[in-house]
Amino acid sequence: MLNQKPEDVRHITCIGAGPIGGGWAAHYLAQGYLVTSYLHDASEHKALMRLIENAWVSLEEIGLVDGASLDNFSWTTDLAKATEKAEFIQESIPEILELKQTLYQKLGEIVDPQVVIASSTSGLSMTDIQVNCATPKRTVVAHPFNPPYLLPLVEMIGGERTAPETLAWTEQFYKIAGKSPLVMKKEVPGFIATRLQEAIWREALHMVANGEATVEQIDQAVVNGPGPRWALMGPCEIFHVGGGEGGMAYCLDQFGPALKLPWTRLIAPELTDELRNAMVDGCVEMTQGKDFATLSRKMNDGLVEIAKMKRQK
Amino acid sequence: MLNQKPEDVRHITCIGAGPIGGGWAAHYLAQGYLVTSYLHDASEHKALMRLIENAWVSLEEIGLVDGASLDNFSWTTDLAKATEKAEFIQESIPEILELKQTLYQKLGEIVDPQVVIASSTSGLSMTDIQVNCATPKRTVVAHPFNPPYLLPLVEMIGGERTAPETLAWTEQFYKIAGKSPLVMKKEVPGFIATRLQEAIWREALHMVANGEATVEQIDQAVVNGPGPRWALMGPCEIFHVGGGEGGMAYCLDQFGPALKLPWTRLIAPELTDELRNAMVDGCVEMTQGKDFATLSRKMNDGLVEIAKMKRQK
Repeated sequence: MLNQKPEDVRHITCIGAGPIGGGWAAHYLAQGYLVTSYLHDASEHKALMRLIENAWVSLEEIGLVDGASLDNFSWTTDLAKATEKAEFIQESIPEILELKQTLYQKLGEIVDPQVVIASSTSGLSMTDIQVNCATPKRTVVAHPFNPPYLLPLVEMIGGERTAPETLAWTEQFYKIAGKSPLVMKKEVPGFIATRLQEAIWREALHMVANGEATVEQIDQAVVNGPGPRWALMGPCEIFHVGGGEGGMAYCLDQFGPALKLPWTRLIAPELTDELRNAMVDGCVEMTQGKDFATLSRKMNDGLVEIAKMKRQK
Repeated sequence: MLNQKPEDVRHITCIGAGPIGGGWAAHYLAQGYLVTSYLHDASEHKALMRLIENAWVSLEEIGLVDGASLDNFSWTTDLAKATEKAEFIQESIPEILELKQTLYQKLGEIVDPQVVIASSTSGLSMTDIQVNCATPKRTVVAHPFNPPYLLPLVEMIGGERTAPETLAWTEQFYKIAGKSPLVMKKEVPGFIATRLQEAIWREALHMVANGEATVEQIDQAVVNGPGPRWALMGPCEIFHVGGGEGGMAYCLDQFGPALKLPWTRLIAPELTDELRNAMVDGCVEMTQGKDFATLSRKMNDGLVEIAKMKRQK
């Protein structure tokens, strides 16, 4: 609720009972919220409870916040009843524009306009979703990564009629609710994470299609090679560390020409001075100017933990 | 040595004292081998020892094999002396073709032709490297991922004059020596892992160049989103699990059209029946037909461990 502080939210409504909607419900329960799920049909209840109980095993292992309990969960197939106490709504219905438009039209009428409605959509634009909503200011896209109760990322962007304060409020809310929100600068298909993931996926498909690698080899290459690093650092920081004392600047100046090599089917952008500096400055800022020894120790310590974890299996 | 079993190798020579050559030396020492490093110049000795001692902190933490000791390390700037007791040679000199050709010519004369010489090259072809080598059969590319003492991947391929038995022997040797070798089916620039990594990297550069994301947002998107999964499973198995009970088949049949969406600048290959089936069969084979519940539990348990590890920091 925009007239309420994000930290005062107690009651969350999750609309949709699939893996994303159910995953969100589990996440919010583990964070100590009172959660009501709206189900399209009562027959979905069984699968939803199985999903939440399965998630709970993992969530207990990570550690619940004080007061978190499955007893704080309720469900209904009555939309008005599902949303009457809502102080925040997380919508995760199927990715069909007409369905979402109809839902947001209805929610726009029955839900207090001060309550934020966040859509888990991975491919639709809020500008399109909010088109028939009478109270669009408080609607926003908040795309999680599956499973939402184990991966913290939430990519956010508003639609044309979303109020900037809605983005600010929701970003703050997600931080309090144990997520890592990322407010996009521009609307771009696939947001950031899906685009990066899709680039790998398409290159992998090319390799299988060309007989250059098997499915198993692709997976082995990732899990035994760059994969463990990506759990710890993103591609930019990895090269910033890979550049040694010289950091990203050394990397780009030394290996810039490699961008012309056919090391993937993806053509690289031109490495202009502007792009070079954006990468270098971005790395220094992101790492708060930490030196190579510190960053390298952080990376190695993390890889040691992952190696030990894998050895135990 | 091809006339000796891979499990009987005791003495390894590492040629080159940079991050890769030094990283290999540390790895082999931790595996209990007697290691001799060849240094181009005695002045490199200090930096090499710092690198090995730094690696040793991580290696002790993971756990050394019985008998592993830094006392098993020696070094020299005399190539003949460095290689006289070698039962396996790991070469990691700079990526300059003429340098490698000259070295392999020399090694081809002074080293017992039964001793395998493996090159850490990431970009050169063994066909080119072995061109002046009188005994090329035992030469092979074995490309590690940095740091070689923490990431197990070794991508292998022979040159035109490499004997198939050299690949088989070396693959076996690496398995014994604690690495995860991957024998490539075809020579392809960047092997597998670097191509996949490069696809992500280029897409990231495009996003920064277009003002679609900052450096920090790209890294956050990976670390809080797909990154932790890649430490546990490759892109194929992730979608195989993501497809639920239906596995990869469901994924491709349902989301195949997404390959046409502009979710990255990388154009996807056409999803022919052949490619579809190669992906589906490959996943079933790789996972030994394990069901969704088992694979999903493996993924969640791993993500829980990574989440706990990150929370402790």
